[in-house]
Amino acid sequence: MPIDLNDFRVKPGATVNLHKHPTLVDPLFDSKKQYHKLLDDHVARLSALQQLLYAANSHAILLIFQAMDAAGKDGAIKHVMSGVNPQGCQVFSFKHPSSTELQHDFLWRTTRNLPERGRIGIFNRSYYEEVLIARVHPEILVSEALPKPPHDATTLWHDRYRSITDLERHLTLNGTIIIKFFLHLSKEEQRKRFIDRIDDPAKNWKFSTADIEERKFWDHYMTAYEACLAATSTEAAPWYIVPADNKRNARLIVSQTILETMESLHMSYPKTTPKRHDELLAIRKQLEEGHHGHANNDGSH
Amino acid sequence: MPIDLNDFRVKPGATVNLHKHPTLVDPLFDSKKQYHKLLDDHVARLSALQQLLYAANSHAILLIFQAMDAAGKDGAIKHVMSGVNPQGCQVFSFKHPSSTELQHDFLWRTTRNLPERGRIGIFNRSYYEEVLIARVHPEILVSEALPKPPHDATTLWHDRYRSITDLERHLTLNGTIIIKFFLHLSKEEQRKRFIDRIDDPAKNWKFSTADIEERKFWDHYMTAYEACLAATSTEAAPWYIVPADNKRNARLIVSQTILETMESLHMSYPKTTPKRHDELLAIRKQLEEGHHGHANNDGSH
Repeated sequence: MPIDLNDFRVKPGATVNLHKHPTLVDPLFDSKKQYHKLLDDHVARLSALQQLLYAANSHAILLIFQAMDAAGKDGAIKHVMSGVNPQGCQVFSFKHPSSTELQHDFLWRTTRNLPERGRIGIFNRSYYEEVLIARVHPEILVSEALPKPPHDATTLWHDRYRSITDLERHLTLNGTIIIKFFLHLSKEEQRKRFIDRIDDPAKNWKFSTADIEERKFWDHYMTAYEACLAATSTEAAPWYIVPADNKRNARLIVSQTILETMESLHMSYPKTTPKRHDELLAIRKQLEEGHHGHANNDGSH
Repeated sequence: MPIDLNDFRVKPGATVNLHKHPTLVDPLFDSKKQYHKLLDDHVARLSALQQLLYAANSHAILLIFQAMDAAGKDGAIKHVMSGVNPQGCQVFSFKHPSSTELQHDFLWRTTRNLPERGRIGIFNRSYYEEVLIARVHPEILVSEALPKPPHDATTLWHDRYRSITDLERHLTLNGTIIIKFFLHLSKEEQRKRFIDRIDDPAKNWKFSTADIEERKFWDHYMTAYEACLAATSTEAAPWYIVPADNKRNARLIVSQTILETMESLHMSYPKTTPKRHDELLAIRKQLEEGHHGHANNDGSH
């Protein structure tokens, strides 16, 4: 049951027909116990890689999660990232933009929150909302006070795709590794999860009447996703369409994708030069003898 | 003595030879008195346009100033923008990046400070330093901890130009008008101004020994500017090479460039619809009669 990530990666330039992408695949585990064993292993390796990322300080990792409601974004982030040192990992959820944010271009509010080198940044929803919900509900654009002349309905989305791929190209060239997940849920599975959220008092808070309203636009969303995934999946910043009807399976696919991508960076701990090594040995000797260091006395000890 | 801005604008795709661009041109004024009259007129018109920009809320203006030391950036910003409402105008000076800023890609710290719609943002130095000082002193790049694989000496600057023009294209499409000024100073005039800064105790603070060090790299800087101006002057975000040996003349050219660009936007105050006009008249009547409004009572009065 090994995963081949190529099965889920959207090839650059390919058209995307979501009907041809499964929302359910054979599970990668035989039992709940085996699932936990696999996930724990992934999380442990991810945690070690994150520490290496921090020490090497050569790259940042940006994980983007997009999906329909109840597809399992929050759960995937929670279960996959919970073993990682929070000092090296930041999650940002992008809901309704503030009035200040609306006064800027559509990439501004997310750019402010991009991860620094050495960190993993997670966007729970992202600038992709600007070509998804904004495409399904173009009335949203009114609040964005766009300049009129250069935009019409046919070029607006094309321009936005290009702004996004240009930004991602720039980030990639400057050391940010971008991985984008679309958690692909079936409409029927969403229905079941909504019912579950209503039936289970502990899950009531997760359900909003607005979710039902958005469900009515399901087909519009699928069309917007298909156009978006096709236009913005690049070699440097690929989209992964993750079958999401089985939550556990989705989490394993997500964690394995992150793992394989980070391992492909071949990061290493910064090397100690022979000169530095000699310095360290000299300092060690002083410490052993109970002396204070003089040469590099910076007042901080 | 009318100015034709085409004389100073760098045509997209053109090569730039700074020797062929004058650092001194015939002044646009006959006397100090006439200079002040012209500048006051420019500032008054600019102030009115800024108010319109704020009310129309359809565009932001980004002014970028780059130049060698003592070319008059600070003075141009001070004299041209001093009549503008500070609420609608923000100046950011970009000096040595902080350690947090160095942990991000080279466009991050300036992007955070981009002007909102309705505002004029002024960058005193900018992300262009990343293809100017960084090109003259490539050792600076070490502190930026760039990823190694995709970069070599020949492609790095090309990649940075493209990141910059991609960003400017995105901003322009989304309502930010970008005007870039290179204040073109002669090496001899810089020498005189440095001497003046040393001789005049009130100007001593403006002089730093590091300025003399940078002066030694004059030819390297000119080469870096030529490549930068040629690669990044676009229809949407043009560079203006402003003769800067005469400070007053430079200020008039700068202010006229901003004026002509803002006037070309043909902004107008938001129109009141007939329905809204009727509402306003109804509210007016209530106010006249000493009543409180009921229909739109939001508790804020």
